[in-house]
Amino acid sequence: MCEATAYIAKSDGSEELLLEDVDIIEPQDDGQIRLVSIYGEQKMINAGIKSMSLVNHRVVFASA
Amino acid sequence: MCEATAYIAKSDGSEELLLEDVDIIEPQDDGQIRLVSIYGEQKMINAGIKSMSLVNHRVVFASA
Repeated sequence: MCEATAYIAKSDGSEELLLEDVDIIEPQDDGQIRLVSIYGEQKMINAGIKSMSLVNHRVVFASA
Repeated sequence: MCEATAYIAKSDGSEELLLEDVDIIEPQDDGQIRLVSIYGEQKMINAGIKSMSLVNHRVVFASA
């Protein structure tokens, strides 16, 4: 499966786990981003995409 | 491999192929998005992410 792990980049340079096994990433009209895992778990985050490597299964967000 | 195919959504509802086998998706400071395929092919696009399904290997952009 090709789901990814979503992290948020913190100001100290570390990364905090947001959600594992992410399938759907969908920016909303209000500026939030909706994440949905392959298990149907959903998270809304106030952040922008910082970088993404699909081959490495990593999506990193940065706080908006 | 878990790369995706990138499309741009057109105003008539259709989708046009942007780049195949996309690994890296990286928003730039100037608002453009940099796409890099697993073969090193690179494209800069003036668009925002509309929706993404990693399991379906699809990333759809919408013109900025």
